[in-house]
Amino acid sequence: MSDGATTRVVIIGGGFAGINAAKVLARDRRIAVTLIDRSNHHLFQPLLYQVAMAGLSPADIAVPIRGLLSRFRKVSVVQDTVTGIDLEAKQVSATGQSWSYDYLVVATGARHAYFGHDEWESNAPGLKTLSQATEIRRRVLQAFESAENEEDPEVRKELLTFAIVGGGPTGVELAGAIAELSRSTLTKDFRRIDPRRTRVVLIEAGPQILAAFSAASAVRATRDLEELGAQVWTESLVTDVSEDSITIGNDGEKLRTRTVLWAAGVHASELGSALSGELDRQGRVPVGADLSVAGHPEVFALGDLARTEDDSGAVLPGVAPVAMQAGRYVGRLIRAELAGKERRPFRYVDKGQMATIGRSKAVVETGRLRLGGFLAWAAWLLIHIYYLSSFRNRALVLVQWAWSYVTFGRGARLIVDREWRNPET
Amino acid sequence: MSDGATTRVVIIGGGFAGINAAKVLARDRRIAVTLIDRSNHHLFQPLLYQVAMAGLSPADIAVPIRGLLSRFRKVSVVQDTVTGIDLEAKQVSATGQSWSYDYLVVATGARHAYFGHDEWESNAPGLKTLSQATEIRRRVLQAFESAENEEDPEVRKELLTFAIVGGGPTGVELAGAIAELSRSTLTKDFRRIDPRRTRVVLIEAGPQILAAFSAASAVRATRDLEELGAQVWTESLVTDVSEDSITIGNDGEKLRTRTVLWAAGVHASELGSALSGELDRQGRVPVGADLSVAGHPEVFALGDLARTEDDSGAVLPGVAPVAMQAGRYVGRLIRAELAGKERRPFRYVDKGQMATIGRSKAVVETGRLRLGGFLAWAAWLLIHIYYLSSFRNRALVLVQWAWSYVTFGRGARLIVDREWRNPET
Repeated sequence: MSDGATTRVVIIGGGFAGINAAKVLARDRRIAVTLIDRSNHHLFQPLLYQVAMAGLSPADIAVPIRGLLSRFRKVSVVQDTVTGIDLEAKQVSATGQSWSYDYLVVATGARHAYFGHDEWESNAPGLKTLSQATEIRRRVLQAFESAENEEDPEVRKELLTFAIVGGGPTGVELAGAIAELSRSTLTKDFRRIDPRRTRVVLIEAGPQILAAFSAASAVRATRDLEELGAQVWTESLVTDVSEDSITIGNDGEKLRTRTVLWAAGVHASELGSALSGELDRQGRVPVGADLSVAGHPEVFALGDLARTEDDSGAVLPGVAPVAMQAGRYVGRLIRAELAGKERRPFRYVDKGQMATIGRSKAVVETGRLRLGGFLAWAAWLLIHIYYLSSFRNRALVLVQWAWSYVTFGRGARLIVDREWRNPET
Repeated sequence: MSDGATTRVVIIGGGFAGINAAKVLARDRRIAVTLIDRSNHHLFQPLLYQVAMAGLSPADIAVPIRGLLSRFRKVSVVQDTVTGIDLEAKQVSATGQSWSYDYLVVATGARHAYFGHDEWESNAPGLKTLSQATEIRRRVLQAFESAENEEDPEVRKELLTFAIVGGGPTGVELAGAIAELSRSTLTKDFRRIDPRRTRVVLIEAGPQILAAFSAASAVRATRDLEELGAQVWTESLVTDVSEDSITIGNDGEKLRTRTVLWAAGVHASELGSALSGELDRQGRVPVGADLSVAGHPEVFALGDLARTEDDSGAVLPGVAPVAMQAGRYVGRLIRAELAGKERRPFRYVDKGQMATIGRSKAVVETGRLRLGGFLAWAAWLLIHIYYLSSFRNRALVLVQWAWSYVTFGRGARLIVDREWRNPET
């Protein structure tokens, strides 16, 4: 499809990195972009836990990739699963088609991982996709329903115990939200159980939750979680997950629970192995200062797929700002190169980090500034609404959050069957 | 659980009939209500097609039954599947529990039916539940995506052909919405296909679509559908549905299509057989003038489950207003009877009927008044927002509709996998 004058860029992955690269490249008439994703939507992943916790609907945080890019006539969006990359032939192939490229941008992200225990997954769903979010929502809400129906007090207790594995921002958000759900939203809904007796345990293998934050912020978050009614267990390595319990450490310490949520490990997309033979332990592709893959200056790995180091050799974290900045950087780099300019190295501008714990509770660190409580929460809210507003859902999300804040309610408390066929009779 | 002074009413089904009965009964301190539903949410079914057509999210038209009734302390909501009704022992049993009743209200509705061809279901989903709505949404959106990827022009044509079986209000709404989706929303999104070439065929076995309406309204609706780009085939009986075609009549006339939606037949819930040995062809329970079941004045069948006749012997249609009025009627009847009053027969107040076809297109009939076009559409909009407002979602739905109207967009264009586990690698 190359006509000589047109440079063909293939982007794999419609997450923060891929979309941002596409938007920069799309403004250049010399470039034809093909963006391939196996899903039809771009996901605002930082708010995915809100879908899992019944606060938002899937459509509030997801937009069709086509819609985001439809105004750019030289961008083609393809919903397909990439099956192979041929770096020598400069070709990408998918289920039923293939594309030649001049530049290739791979930003296929990461999935959650179980440290070699994939068998845990059915008892401990992770949170990376919309269908995982609705599955978690279904499990959490169903646990309360089942507890209400349960005669056996032991089983009822198991049903009202929720374990969240992994004390990063996602784990903290989930633990805080389940605690809030049980202590505010659901209190009046049940007749036989008291949802306020719900036990929420956040389990972290390391010495502190929010490991990327300062010790002071971690303490603050722990106190906030405890105030909401959640417990925080640090230095607790999960060694087994079963249908009705989770095992900690090697002494066989057990927590009896029917609902385990997994927010502990991630592993980069398997496509990385097509780009490099030297993936790190998390499956990430090592990249150079220009985010290109060793030996292939025309191939870039971005976002959670890549192991990106800053000047000091520290690995950049797998967060949205890194992916967005990397996407824009590679877009600009390709355009500059076509204009005959030299490559300049990627510089990540760290604006800080934040994690929300619950209503009016969050921790924010930016530069030397450390915030907690309402102020941090308000900052979190503003920043997330600002970024969401690059899509269309701002008004909707605002209405729902305002409503939730006033009423303590959650609008999307739906248990939807996975099976759509008529029930057996 | 009876303490002598308390009358126990068990309601099965949290649709329009069940919820309305519960709300009336809940205001009487002498009555303890148990409402059992297999799902956790009440569904605003008249807008279900909007979820299927990517205009609204599931949570916009569904509310937790618990939330609707939580303020009534003597109402218990149970999420469970009823497995048996013992009319003699006056007992209802579910998976793990049972309830004795003084009055029983059964309002379990209807499912879609395939005239004895249940094998058609996997190729022709119906539209009764949220999971069916998201399945239809997934299929319709995926058909456009697959067409964009398809090299074979014949297959592409099949992918861009949509057949809707059944010319009632739901069929008309679906046909109009797919036509609109292809002619407005999606036009700029694809590069290889032209969504405006999409073929939408509404297939009706009888001589006119919207059989319950006047011939004039049916003609108006047909013209509106054709203007949107849909075709209407009347007197076309479907005799087979396969993966890539639908067969009409006995001469083997075939329409090649990869997407068939079923809006043709319904069959009342199987629980009817526990109430009566004389179900009609659609499985409905015949009820008396007081909506009670023959031989059991303490047992009522309501809504789509019941065959309710008016004074002239005509059967009332399976629409929301009949179910709502029947629910309130039975609630009041039970309260009046407890106050020593005689039963008075149910009188359905017919306020008319309406079907929407698309943007600024609808038909409304009320009394002698017949409306079409923008005015009918505005009436449809107002009435649906009014009824939705008994739940909490009014503001959200308004924001989304206003946005859709201005931009011709649809906010919930998501293809979400049914499988939530990590994809195979």
